[in-house]
Amino acid sequence: MKPFTSTISFAEARRLVLDAATPLARTETVALTDADHRVAAIDVIVSDDIPPFDRAAMDGYAVRSRDTTGAGPDDPVTLQCIEYVYTGATSSMAVGRGQCIEIATGAPLPEGADAVVMVEETTRDAAHVLIRKPASPGQHIGRRGGDLPRGQVAVRAGQTLGPGQIGALAACGVTRLDVYARPSVALFSTGNEIVEPGRPLDRGQIYDINRFTLASLVHRHGGVATAMPVTADTIDHVTAALESARSHDVIVCSGGSSVGDRDLVVEALRERGEIVFHGVSVKPGKPTALGRIGGTPVLAMPGNPTSCLSNGYLLLVPFLRRLARLPPWEPRAIDLPLARRIASAADRHQFFTVRVADGRVEPAFTGSSHITSMADADGYIEIPAGTPSIDAGSIVRVTLFA
Amino acid sequence: MKPFTSTISFAEARRLVLDAATPLARTETVALTDADHRVAAIDVIVSDDIPPFDRAAMDGYAVRSRDTTGAGPDDPVTLQCIEYVYTGATSSMAVGRGQCIEIATGAPLPEGADAVVMVEETTRDAAHVLIRKPASPGQHIGRRGGDLPRGQVAVRAGQTLGPGQIGALAACGVTRLDVYARPSVALFSTGNEIVEPGRPLDRGQIYDINRFTLASLVHRHGGVATAMPVTADTIDHVTAALESARSHDVIVCSGGSSVGDRDLVVEALRERGEIVFHGVSVKPGKPTALGRIGGTPVLAMPGNPTSCLSNGYLLLVPFLRRLARLPPWEPRAIDLPLARRIASAADRHQFFTVRVADGRVEPAFTGSSHITSMADADGYIEIPAGTPSIDAGSIVRVTLFA
Repeated sequence: MKPFTSTISFAEARRLVLDAATPLARTETVALTDADHRVAAIDVIVSDDIPPFDRAAMDGYAVRSRDTTGAGPDDPVTLQCIEYVYTGATSSMAVGRGQCIEIATGAPLPEGADAVVMVEETTRDAAHVLIRKPASPGQHIGRRGGDLPRGQVAVRAGQTLGPGQIGALAACGVTRLDVYARPSVALFSTGNEIVEPGRPLDRGQIYDINRFTLASLVHRHGGVATAMPVTADTIDHVTAALESARSHDVIVCSGGSSVGDRDLVVEALRERGEIVFHGVSVKPGKPTALGRIGGTPVLAMPGNPTSCLSNGYLLLVPFLRRLARLPPWEPRAIDLPLARRIASAADRHQFFTVRVADGRVEPAFTGSSHITSMADADGYIEIPAGTPSIDAGSIVRVTLFA
Repeated sequence: MKPFTSTISFAEARRLVLDAATPLARTETVALTDADHRVAAIDVIVSDDIPPFDRAAMDGYAVRSRDTTGAGPDDPVTLQCIEYVYTGATSSMAVGRGQCIEIATGAPLPEGADAVVMVEETTRDAAHVLIRKPASPGQHIGRRGGDLPRGQVAVRAGQTLGPGQIGALAACGVTRLDVYARPSVALFSTGNEIVEPGRPLDRGQIYDINRFTLASLVHRHGGVATAMPVTADTIDHVTAALESARSHDVIVCSGGSSVGDRDLVVEALRERGEIVFHGVSVKPGKPTALGRIGGTPVLAMPGNPTSCLSNGYLLLVPFLRRLARLPPWEPRAIDLPLARRIASAADRHQFFTVRVADGRVEPAFTGSSHITSMADADGYIEIPAGTPSIDAGSIVRVTLFA
């Protein structure tokens, strides 16, 4: 068994992980209905003014504003109403002197009119309309191109799409658009003891956890996870698994990166590819490695489920988001007092899971081999290396999982 | 044209919307790989201890702790190593007096042993191991059931599942589980001027925006959106559209809820169902109605895209999350100074979109008919009714869209 000869700092590991993440250049075309959370790959230019015509911004009457001069609540101006323009229709007539056209919100402004008077400022008397407030030129008109003028960029390349941007694209009549591809992530767990859920356990065996937790995280952060079979603890099996996953954008495996003499991922990477680092001064998650095989980055995670998932949050998420061209993750965080003193691993950066109850922060971490350290937690606090303990009552920043 | 006779306050509208949201009782079975963001419908009880055996928490040697009494760096205890237990294997021998068994992290503890000594605290000499630190009983052993003991609840009914909970379920060997169904949301836009993207526009027409923005929001908050065709401005068409959508859990339409004499959704609801409210003292989004048709809630949104989407955030999201049994949405928010004075509609609760630039908050809202009021915004501030303006430099809370 070979103990770690050295570890690198968490900050250094994070930097090297980000350095290894080349934003994908690959694009694909998706339907607008599938574009939420995707990243636009090209500037989408507005091809026609939106709206394509001047239109009423209120229900009321299209008027020549100069005809309404001097109108007052008790001293109305009377105009002749010559037509009704529905939304979606167009007027067949122009508004002449002393005339008006009744108009619905969104209907095209008739020729001759330069203002709309709200229905609330009028009284109707058969074919006549009493205008009780003077209209200023342009009043209650939505101008052609006032939302998105022709030639403007509706959505920029690199912009992450959400409901508002999807709305702007719909306004432009866009039905499909080019977005950056989602990173393809191959996931596999190594270990003779690891069994796929659904099969019975033999003595000494446990179910695979990491490919499920990591797959959720991958999907949450813009990737597409492909689960590969559990890999047995032989150098040949591990090497074959790595080689078979090389077509993916990144390989994330777990187990096999500790210090025992059967820790084979690092060995396989040394033989067939390269190691960027092995061993990070973080708790949990020290036996984590970054390497490459045939140019494909490999993130080798610890087998312990909480170690694996915590490095998923700390290292895989930033890596993946850079690959996907998504902005850095900024989860919701709250500052609250610690209910009890926490003794820390002072020499390592610590990811310490917690629960929030009654406005106070309770430890949830019970061990890196316990998935309940994650499952029973609301979030985590990060304790920098060099902090031996945090006293009860100290205000800590909790990064929330949801 | 009939102006609103009255509006209700935003707080009252929100209360009535939440009152109308009955959490779904319908459940469905999903694969564990599809369970992220879903809500468990039953308590999942741990059927067998996890881990199912006592196991080594470190790479090292399984020992009888009493055999290591008095061991020190320069005064080691020598034990005979009789076997190696790999992870996933089981030992064929028991540890007797003066003996030890080499063991990998995660391997079952051999009979006779009551502690594990880390490899770092030993020296190997062929078949002998020099133990350089005394072991305390139970040291570096992960106890059977120490993570999830048999009979414990791994995931509670009503709990929202994320990576950690999915990990706990995987640990239990769960491959499928019962979750609450996602609310089915029928979406349609009304208006003779509204055209499906992909078709050419005639004069006076614009593209449908709202069903795309609302669909994104629905998917983000646990629902399944079904888009129905754009509905023409006749009472028969609108009534038929509402009737045809009654099998969904909620109908969300837009347009047709203003005060013009062609605003038909409210009229159709009055004739065939009921109206809970019509008109909310919120800006934008005043012409919003809540009703029912045959027991199915109907949220009738304004046609203006920013009004529709802002009420999507303010009213539809809380409604939908209650239906889906998801916890209330708590988006990320930041407190920053306002770059310029904002004059508000003092009589209405206001949803005012903003951009964040250089640590200051800039207005993004340019009009409720402009989708760019949303597309070019980073988030929004809420201005309560009764606040006529907010001065430049005031600290405002920005709720971020992402």
